[in-house]
Amino acid sequence: MQHTEPDNLIFGIRAVIEAVEAGQEIDKIFVKKDLQSELSKELFATVRGRNIPVVKVPVEKIDRITRKNHQGVIAFISPVSYARTTQLIPSLYEEGKNPFVVVLDGITDVRNFGAIARTCECAGVDAIVIGQTGSAPINADAIKTSAGALLNIPVCREHNLPYVVNFLKESGLSVIAASEKAVDNYDQIDYNKPIALVMGAEDKGISDEIMALCDEQVRIPMRGNIESLNVSVAAGILIYEAIKHRDL
Amino acid sequence: MQHTEPDNLIFGIRAVIEAVEAGQEIDKIFVKKDLQSELSKELFATVRGRNIPVVKVPVEKIDRITRKNHQGVIAFISPVSYARTTQLIPSLYEEGKNPFVVVLDGITDVRNFGAIARTCECAGVDAIVIGQTGSAPINADAIKTSAGALLNIPVCREHNLPYVVNFLKESGLSVIAASEKAVDNYDQIDYNKPIALVMGAEDKGISDEIMALCDEQVRIPMRGNIESLNVSVAAGILIYEAIKHRDL
Repeated sequence: MQHTEPDNLIFGIRAVIEAVEAGQEIDKIFVKKDLQSELSKELFATVRGRNIPVVKVPVEKIDRITRKNHQGVIAFISPVSYARTTQLIPSLYEEGKNPFVVVLDGITDVRNFGAIARTCECAGVDAIVIGQTGSAPINADAIKTSAGALLNIPVCREHNLPYVVNFLKESGLSVIAASEKAVDNYDQIDYNKPIALVMGAEDKGISDEIMALCDEQVRIPMRGNIESLNVSVAAGILIYEAIKHRDL
Repeated sequence: MQHTEPDNLIFGIRAVIEAVEAGQEIDKIFVKKDLQSELSKELFATVRGRNIPVVKVPVEKIDRITRKNHQGVIAFISPVSYARTTQLIPSLYEEGKNPFVVVLDGITDVRNFGAIARTCECAGVDAIVIGQTGSAPINADAIKTSAGALLNIPVCREHNLPYVVNFLKESGLSVIAASEKAVDNYDQIDYNKPIALVMGAEDKGISDEIMALCDEQVRIPMRGNIESLNVSVAAGILIYEAIKHRDL
């Protein structure tokens, strides 16, 4: 737990409030479980409505991260600057682009996440959309595994992923689910249109709620005994199939 | 260094000699640097000509692995049973198959190696060929990352990789190199023939010696700032492109 670089941290209630108000990109805030004071109310009021997870933790957890006078509150500065899907998609259309976004529904493994981000950057995908919770942390390891892609490609970290997927549909994107249970082979559908490719969690796949919103499902053929590919490999195959169609 | 399961180890000179003579699949043998005795000469004579790396190490390294009476010699039992390329290729032809093997030239990262093995199994690749040295160890981590694929697909671990690539050529396989410097796009060549797809090391790519033996080179288009994909993702894209052609 000592791996966090001190300059990625803000500690103390007042300092965290000020950072949030100044628009500093915050990954998450840890507050000790029994935090109660006028200033802490101000903190919660400031954070409310913003896209910042606040996690209540035992004070010992914060003590292990910093020895400084944290007053029960530390904020982790995000190494990347997040985009908002609702702003990004209209701007892609305005630029005359044929939007291609990749939605990651619960990819928790940092290396898989980094490898997918790297593939997205290499393939010219316009943005990656992830959920605010249940996703791999965008930390130094993720950035390293992504070969720096996470600093180059817009990442939208969204509080309500089903809402955002629905927004993508309403914005004219065809939402395509990768699923082993799909009927269509991955090379049988048309990708030369605005698309959102959804990849699900390593273990559970795409959540039912998101799957219900998908317009199309595709599968990659499996010929051996193993039921599925590694998710970053599967994403690579689908992303490159899509850009092949879009180039024609 | 205490992660090795005791039942993967054989220790003591006589026990190791007997295991080798009995045909036990050995991953590697550690001998202490200054090992000298009649019995040690017998060990070296037994190992000679077999496909088993013998590594001279300080005795402390062996002491850290086992506290038992190792006499300066331990052997690591391989969790997989290796195949020989020179036997495997003729048998594929005899079975009426159109051989498709994947050659890994210096893939050292266990997770990349495991993910590639998983893709090979899922895609119905006939075998994986690796070098005896400079490759990721086939250990419990590799098997886990491969989702068990390494227990299902033949793995040829070869002492002289250039010799074996040349053997593949002489056996009628077209040797295809994945390289960012290639002229041909990966979807522009014919894969519907006996092929060996060569993937190079994460950092250095394919060695000059192996590259000189390749019949064709292909590249995956890069549209961003990053020069290359993760090697397991690149392998997945190429392997699935190949099987798509072979299915037509």
